[in-house]
Amino acid sequence: MKELQEKIKEYGTVLPGNVLKVDAFLNHQVDPVLMKHMGKEFAKLYKDAGVTKIWTVESSGIAPAVMTGLAMNVPVIFARKHKSLTLKDDLYTASVYSYTKETTNQISISKKYVSPTDKVLLIDDFLANGQALEGMLQIAQAAGVEVAGAGIVIEKTFQKGGQELRKQGLRIESLAKVSSLANGKAEFED
Amino acid sequence: MKELQEKIKEYGTVLPGNVLKVDAFLNHQVDPVLMKHMGKEFAKLYKDAGVTKIWTVESSGIAPAVMTGLAMNVPVIFARKHKSLTLKDDLYTASVYSYTKETTNQISISKKYVSPTDKVLLIDDFLANGQALEGMLQIAQAAGVEVAGAGIVIEKTFQKGGQELRKQGLRIESLAKVSSLANGKAEFED
Repeated sequence: MKELQEKIKEYGTVLPGNVLKVDAFLNHQVDPVLMKHMGKEFAKLYKDAGVTKIWTVESSGIAPAVMTGLAMNVPVIFARKHKSLTLKDDLYTASVYSYTKETTNQISISKKYVSPTDKVLLIDDFLANGQALEGMLQIAQAAGVEVAGAGIVIEKTFQKGGQELRKQGLRIESLAKVSSLANGKAEFED
Repeated sequence: MKELQEKIKEYGTVLPGNVLKVDAFLNHQVDPVLMKHMGKEFAKLYKDAGVTKIWTVESSGIAPAVMTGLAMNVPVIFARKHKSLTLKDDLYTASVYSYTKETTNQISISKKYVSPTDKVLLIDDFLANGQALEGMLQIAQAAGVEVAGAGIVIEKTFQKGGQELRKQGLRIESLAKVSSLANGKAEFED
């Protein structure tokens, strides 16, 4: 997606440890018009996939996910993050390790809003090692819910998550594919 | 806002401690069409207020805030929550106590995205004791930023936040004003 690449080039900054900081328009300050365009793009990519619900993880996935839900006219669920969680019967949970923050969070989705007839589209802001997607996939499996695929705003293709998950058969559509962050500069595939 | 009242009546549940649970359409599962309508409503209410930016607090404020930003064509900032925070020179921070969760969080906004010429509209999902709004007002004051007012999805008018903040001169527009949650039932003002 050209518009997103341009935003990354203009406003993204590269930090040590292959961190691409996009808090100017995605995960602290948010550009609502860009979010709307991204939502329409995901809706177009998955228009024939029979999606009945969007899943994402708080917080940075919410804006693109809600715009995708609007474009596809389906509800959105954002999984909640908790540092730890006493067992709750009414929640599906999974563990998600964050390499950036070096913490493990539980993510949870209320069973009340999950139906076995759902076909979910997983939206997230970043795909690097694939931990957040794997957490959502675990929940989908536990719930017996079909997954149409994933919609990622920025995929770091030089990290292993996307490759491994595609190998497992997951459809992944990424709006920007960053192939390198060497020398403080984002390089894109295509 | 009639549509929101109907949603609360149909899907809201009342929990002990005057908690109104709206995770069916607002803060876990999200109804994107309702969010869009709320964004348009806030934009209409504040159309002549010279708003240049929306501020909210993660996570449940993000969906209505981004839709308001879209309707008003201005950027959105969601303040980040942290349990504790080592002092960072590049952040404005404030303490926010949650009566529901009985925890204190730091909220923070990056100085990079705050300009003294900003006129901000504060959006949040709930107004009860007013802690989140007060945190954002503290940051606005520290940053020397003008506040146009607040846009609240659900105000509990039987709790003190709204009254006190209006007394201090803050304009607050609430889309649903819940005057009572007695006997497990939401009653509305107007």
